[in-house]
Amino acid sequence: MNVGIIGLGLIGGSMAIDLRRRGFADGIAGVESDSVNAAAAVKIGLVDRILTLEECVAESDIIVLAVPVGAAVKMLPQVLDLFAAGEGKCRKVVMDVCSTKENLSKTAHYHPVRQRYVATHPMAGTEYSGPWAAMPGLFDGRACIICNQEESDPSAVHLVEKLYDCLNMRPIYMNAASHDVHAAYVSHISHITSFALALTVLDKEKNEKHIFDLASGGFSSTVRLAKSNADMWVPIFSQNRDNVLKVIDTYIEKMNDFRKAIADFDEDGIRSLIEDANRIKRIIR
Amino acid sequence: MNVGIIGLGLIGGSMAIDLRRRGFADGIAGVESDSVNAAAAVKIGLVDRILTLEECVAESDIIVLAVPVGAAVKMLPQVLDLFAAGEGKCRKVVMDVCSTKENLSKTAHYHPVRQRYVATHPMAGTEYSGPWAAMPGLFDGRACIICNQEESDPSAVHLVEKLYDCLNMRPIYMNAASHDVHAAYVSHISHITSFALALTVLDKEKNEKHIFDLASGGFSSTVRLAKSNADMWVPIFSQNRDNVLKVIDTYIEKMNDFRKAIADFDEDGIRSLIEDANRIKRIIR
Repeated sequence: MNVGIIGLGLIGGSMAIDLRRRGFADGIAGVESDSVNAAAAVKIGLVDRILTLEECVAESDIIVLAVPVGAAVKMLPQVLDLFAAGEGKCRKVVMDVCSTKENLSKTAHYHPVRQRYVATHPMAGTEYSGPWAAMPGLFDGRACIICNQEESDPSAVHLVEKLYDCLNMRPIYMNAASHDVHAAYVSHISHITSFALALTVLDKEKNEKHIFDLASGGFSSTVRLAKSNADMWVPIFSQNRDNVLKVIDTYIEKMNDFRKAIADFDEDGIRSLIEDANRIKRIIR
Repeated sequence: MNVGIIGLGLIGGSMAIDLRRRGFADGIAGVESDSVNAAAAVKIGLVDRILTLEECVAESDIIVLAVPVGAAVKMLPQVLDLFAAGEGKCRKVVMDVCSTKENLSKTAHYHPVRQRYVATHPMAGTEYSGPWAAMPGLFDGRACIICNQEESDPSAVHLVEKLYDCLNMRPIYMNAASHDVHAAYVSHISHITSFALALTVLDKEKNEKHIFDLASGGFSSTVRLAKSNADMWVPIFSQNRDNVLKVIDTYIEKMNDFRKAIADFDEDGIRSLIEDANRIKRIIR
């Protein structure tokens, strides 16, 4: 199986590592607009070679679109156009791995070869980016969302399921709109709270040495996502604007509940908020 | 050296493990008001035996006050009273390990044997509590704050420095008031943001299975501190109320900056907030 990966960052690169070493991919070609990242991806051995989009689509059986969602919305129709322009019935598959799904799904909805596209979101990542952030085993044991699968050919969905099975991921099926709601509620808001925490600490604590000294493991863990890359996150927040705004509003309410209980010396109120929050233990180990 | 540990939770228990195995403590006695925790601490082997406060102070050369700060404010004068009531010049030392320092320091300020007390805050912990949460190596390589050391006997400070050196901690000297400001800015706010995140996600996402499925490692890391114990955190937020309120206000401002940029489709604004937040990379690895 020839795999083409468009965008050789953390996700694309980590997929390349496991798809190759676990035997899913015989050859892997990459498309990468950043020349430094492209050269690094070849040197590290993530991909065999860098191609243009056209060459990559021509040579690959399955194409993974692993660019930020703003770029993916532009490139998905280009890939589908290349599929449609090919000779005979197209058997190739394109999948994306972006964190918002509704916009992408709308973009492809009326395309004549829409059914060769499978919308997915593997729930894995780190706060690092670039080909040097790629790592083996990133996806092991995590969930992978497959959206609007009824709009894709069963054979295309099946191939994508095989790919994710090779990555040891557990598939979950959902429509694109509810994916975006749930992703805002769980994943997107935690990035925003972390960015806001970093901004707060950097603003209040001008002496960086103090931050370093007073940071226990807890602070590092809570602020970790604030290292995340703007290229990836700006289009996510834009494309999932309405859902993200709703969850920010709820978050600000909860923060104000805390503020009021502390301001009022209401120890029972603080205790009850903390104990309510502790229920997260039942879900996250 | 006989060590007495009052409060056999995560911090007291973890100290017991390393002070014993690294040869600082010949014997360790514990004081613990919760009978289940007391029995567990003996069974696990954290302490040799459970004593009353009076017995423990009589038998120990150094007493570690490792209870929540609300209880510590009551117990510190009791321990100092027992020191003062002893025969001859007191050579014993009491130290606390609480997360707020100004209130405790005020409580002890005019006590006739104030100089046998050393105020400290080891910057280490996990989100778990109780004697079963105790672990070896918890403190290794972290910073430890020693407050108002000019109010303590040099010999008392020296013994506490030896204890922290055995735990592989790096001492940092600060007055109690500025400790509390900096702790609010770095540590206390990250707990509140995490509690508020858990409350938000549990409120918006009624289906717990969705939280589990959509939680990537990033969400788990950001929400981790929301598992923290109310008994510990209620008195911290109360005692550090004014500093905590100031930092909550700054945090809500930053969150509103994000909200506005997203609501206005202001992609440059979102990018600039994220890139500002990314500066935390310079400080926290």
